[in-house]
Amino acid sequence: MPTQLEYARKNIKSAQIKTVAADEKIPLGKITAECAAGRIVIPANIHHKKLHPIGIGKILRTKINANIGNSSVQSCPKEELQKLKTAVKYGADTVMDLSTGANIRKIRREIIGHSTIPVGTVPIYECASIVQDTNKLDFELFLDVISKQAEEGVDYMTVHAGLLKKHVPLAMKRKMKIVSRGGAILAKWMACHNRENFLFENFGRILDVCRKNDVTISLGDGLRPGCLADASDKAQFAELDTLAELVGECRRAGVQAMVEGPGHIPLDQIEMNMRKEDEVCDGAPFYILGPVVTDCAPGYDHITSAIGAALGAFYGASMLCYVTPKEHLGLPDVEDVRNGVIAYKIAAHAADVALKKPDARMRDDMISDARAEFDWERQFKLALDPERAREYRRSSLAKAAKRQKKKDFCGMCGPQFCSIKASSEIAAQKPAK
Amino acid sequence: MPTQLEYARKNIKSAQIKTVAADEKIPLGKITAECAAGRIVIPANIHHKKLHPIGIGKILRTKINANIGNSSVQSCPKEELQKLKTAVKYGADTVMDLSTGANIRKIRREIIGHSTIPVGTVPIYECASIVQDTNKLDFELFLDVISKQAEEGVDYMTVHAGLLKKHVPLAMKRKMKIVSRGGAILAKWMACHNRENFLFENFGRILDVCRKNDVTISLGDGLRPGCLADASDKAQFAELDTLAELVGECRRAGVQAMVEGPGHIPLDQIEMNMRKEDEVCDGAPFYILGPVVTDCAPGYDHITSAIGAALGAFYGASMLCYVTPKEHLGLPDVEDVRNGVIAYKIAAHAADVALKKPDARMRDDMISDARAEFDWERQFKLALDPERAREYRRSSLAKAAKRQKKKDFCGMCGPQFCSIKASSEIAAQKPAK
Repeated sequence: MPTQLEYARKNIKSAQIKTVAADEKIPLGKITAECAAGRIVIPANIHHKKLHPIGIGKILRTKINANIGNSSVQSCPKEELQKLKTAVKYGADTVMDLSTGANIRKIRREIIGHSTIPVGTVPIYECASIVQDTNKLDFELFLDVISKQAEEGVDYMTVHAGLLKKHVPLAMKRKMKIVSRGGAILAKWMACHNRENFLFENFGRILDVCRKNDVTISLGDGLRPGCLADASDKAQFAELDTLAELVGECRRAGVQAMVEGPGHIPLDQIEMNMRKEDEVCDGAPFYILGPVVTDCAPGYDHITSAIGAALGAFYGASMLCYVTPKEHLGLPDVEDVRNGVIAYKIAAHAADVALKKPDARMRDDMISDARAEFDWERQFKLALDPERAREYRRSSLAKAAKRQKKKDFCGMCGPQFCSIKASSEIAAQKPAK
Repeated sequence: MPTQLEYARKNIKSAQIKTVAADEKIPLGKITAECAAGRIVIPANIHHKKLHPIGIGKILRTKINANIGNSSVQSCPKEELQKLKTAVKYGADTVMDLSTGANIRKIRREIIGHSTIPVGTVPIYECASIVQDTNKLDFELFLDVISKQAEEGVDYMTVHAGLLKKHVPLAMKRKMKIVSRGGAILAKWMACHNRENFLFENFGRILDVCRKNDVTISLGDGLRPGCLADASDKAQFAELDTLAELVGECRRAGVQAMVEGPGHIPLDQIEMNMRKEDEVCDGAPFYILGPVVTDCAPGYDHITSAIGAALGAFYGASMLCYVTPKEHLGLPDVEDVRNGVIAYKIAAHAADVALKKPDARMRDDMISDARAEFDWERQFKLALDPERAREYRRSSLAKAAKRQKKKDFCGMCGPQFCSIKASSEIAAQKPAK
């Protein structure tokens, strides 16, 4: 079967392409052309039966990804399904299962079985969990793992094939060196064996597997900066050049590809980073992690990174990988998933509104109308997180039990000095001449 | 006694000017010149005894303000002091007491008595709480209230003198009309009496009080947009033109002045809004509320607005008024104050780093060093909220009780696949050739 890229090149409007066009309210021809050019990817493994396909690309609604999955410190398959459910409920467009602990395969199969949104993985994690000593990794194991994952229905896979041996010394000069798990595993392997990255050397065989099952390749940035001091450095951009070459290889092989990006980036370097990827990688969708815009707020990195993500999307990133409040400290639990997803819905939506994407501001206008009319229920329904908004209003009115039945004020100003009420009184009389 | 503006004009280096220069690590001459030009204000009422003065201006560290205070629905003087303490602890540079409920004077006096940071108010709120029916307001009451507040030591006051009768019809065309409480009260008064804003007509007498006690005037934006649809409209900019005139009047009278700004603004209009205020108002410090960049996330407006605030500061705003998670829903409690202040420290700091203000990135570099060295305690101490960071790490390690004593990993990757550990192992061996 052809991949979505191949369908588009032949100008065949696949069911997936049609769905994306309809969902995004963009003409079918335009979507097809962007897919054919590789500027839109539709991660849709032919084996992922429950999938409702989405497109990832600059002209589309900005997408967000939620990372879930266990580590050897924390592991419970049931909790991972709960995280999936929470991520989908609050609007994640894709999930990545980043498990590195026990039951990797079982967890992944359950996630794919339950998921209507694309599922991504970082296959080197499963390989690492098999060999334990990561210096014992080899390409045959990797190929076996991705073949099985592809047959299970994984829609996209992060492959750190762009991190070369010659890049490692550049990274060793940094304050934080290598903070990507996959990148660190591979760099250590290269240093230990004094050999080139086996993912780079065997990239063609990876493409065969992806081509066959239409797995989208997400070119991992093993050298993403891990602190502001390391941002936009030689190591980062040397790897980006290699990722750009690999984008070309993917496209030649008919495999869909996107590129992963930073990381930790100061506010003033975000625009440059987005434009650079777009140029260097010939418009391949940029899938960024945050970026966080300061290093000094552990516990609040959903916020530090939502700032960077909003700007990143505004300057052209196509998908935002969420960061939760637990980033740098531990794995997210279900509540962290909720907080991370909402922070990223905000970032993505704010960018889409600013970019005037189709109908993006409609929700804002509707909720503002509801707010002006004191229609609290409608306001809650239109909120990104109705439960939280409802809970906050309830708790702030609790102390004024008697007034609870009145609806035409909020707990901020109280009923006496409500600006919205005053406004409607002014509007009701003839405006002053 | 002269105001800080008058000192600076005479090139007298007041104790306050010296403190600002020292704290900001900027030459005294530069600070004095900026103060003299009105591009820096130092809100320092001569009666506020415990004050440690700060400067507010584009070339200085971006400041953040925390709003506290009660409404008729929620009121407890002790809780307000707790909010003050929390705001100061997490790094608020000023607080505003926005009480409109019971015990206004008592609460304000206690706040000033306890506060080492500048305290601002919106005096029309106290006036409203006295008359209850806001159409009965008059200027003599206002003058009496600000005179008393000035003598109590209020460092800056929001005065909505720029909202004119002719602006009201412009605002009535909007989706959300008027969302500023002070603005709505005055607009309603003007509509009721068919008279000009009494604050505008008597502005000279307000200046006398402020001049005498060195109260900084914060020119309120009664017509700030309350939703994205109303952003950057005629009403907003018509008022801004009047605010610019009033900046001139303040300066001629030797009174320090800053200008308040929006509100709800889409991401792509923030730069334009910042540049416009700077131009129109001749460099008067811009003190912005958020702005929120989407209307549809009630319960998370500390995040929607931190995105806007970071960009606002990057493009020239001098002070950011925080927004808490309860915005649009109720009054913040102590925990909301904490979350709001941290979100705004992040926004302000991210902008300062991007603008390369003196030593701004030092904290980021230090925490990154600590992170690379697995020095958790130092990392926590450098974090904007040490308690939260510590709590998150503890909770994510709780499930791995046995490993708790090991420090060289975090709960994200677990001890086996830690990228930082792998990095240091690579660095320890000779780099691969």
